[in-house]
Amino acid sequence: MHGSLKNLARKLGRLPGFGPRSARRAVLFLLKNRDQLMLPLAAELHDVASKVRACVECGNLDINDNCGICDDIRRDRSRICVVEDVGDLWAMERAAVYHGLYHVLGGTLSALDGRGPDDLHIDRLVRRAGVIGTEEVILALSATVDGQTTAHYIGEKLANLPLNVTRLAHGMPVGGELDYLDDGTLAQALKARAKLES
Amino acid sequence: MHGSLKNLARKLGRLPGFGPRSARRAVLFLLKNRDQLMLPLAAELHDVASKVRACVECGNLDINDNCGICDDIRRDRSRICVVEDVGDLWAMERAAVYHGLYHVLGGTLSALDGRGPDDLHIDRLVRRAGVIGTEEVILALSATVDGQTTAHYIGEKLANLPLNVTRLAHGMPVGGELDYLDDGTLAQALKARAKLES
Repeated sequence: MHGSLKNLARKLGRLPGFGPRSARRAVLFLLKNRDQLMLPLAAELHDVASKVRACVECGNLDINDNCGICDDIRRDRSRICVVEDVGDLWAMERAAVYHGLYHVLGGTLSALDGRGPDDLHIDRLVRRAGVIGTEEVILALSATVDGQTTAHYIGEKLANLPLNVTRLAHGMPVGGELDYLDDGTLAQALKARAKLES
Repeated sequence: MHGSLKNLARKLGRLPGFGPRSARRAVLFLLKNRDQLMLPLAAELHDVASKVRACVECGNLDINDNCGICDDIRRDRSRICVVEDVGDLWAMERAAVYHGLYHVLGGTLSALDGRGPDDLHIDRLVRRAGVIGTEEVILALSATVDGQTTAHYIGEKLANLPLNVTRLAHGMPVGGELDYLDDGTLAQALKARAKLES
């Protein structure tokens, strides 16, 4: 295996979901598709790395200082959905059920990883939420200890503002089977049970 | 998700072992490691795509017309190991148990995929095997129907040359458990049983 191929495989192997073996397979696959995939991929990686930046308002990734969502006048400006990461924002957008603005924290508070409030964009969120017309801040954070700690911390920071702070519902995933549900989710789903719609 | 990010994710998602979800995760990971990974990866992809080619002798991938193995005077030139793909050559080299030359076929004969003898580098193999001093051609092909068909076809093509044509042994994988062995392998392993070395 030539050194340049080894280096390429090593770099690909650092991607999440890739190991040494799949990285080697990817190198061969790329070499078999040089013009259709390998060269365009190289160009796009370079392009995206140089152009894409975080939106100065919400933290979403875009090629402009203000992202497409913040700039979209059709979005509902009275709502801000707080997410941990840009990947979570993408997931919300794929579901296409939310039409307000976002705020990307850049992670959760974590004693273990040593991430405190100053490492997240919480101050910026409080400033944005203080703008007249903001009615609701939706905390769409992980249902983990760190996620919930972060949610409570943000809730306190926003307590003095005239707006509602909400969180995503806990319960059974759609299509989920009761038998496979963990106890915590089952307890939450029972507690938050709703009237059957007829 | 900005269009440029979508395009990048779509390209990454075409790599073997990657789906849409892992491709999106990879895009975020790359953007978090722009200088250490994303830009170097772009440069290396471009570099490898432009420089790496198939060895005119054996078909191995290298940046020279003759690959490092064919050019290495310490390799045993009396033996040629025939493999389907460059990935198989890499696997042999990683095991570091073979010191002869290689010949990459570029696949196996396959009625289903419509690959005939002309699509593989079999003529070139016969020419190389005809060189004075070649003592053995080792067929390291898959133990599948297509692999074995290819092995027999090559065996016939080489029948008139004064050399031995061999194939890899069939049997239990080292570390394998009898209980998990398929019937075909078990039958082959029993048939080719060898005297216990004391």
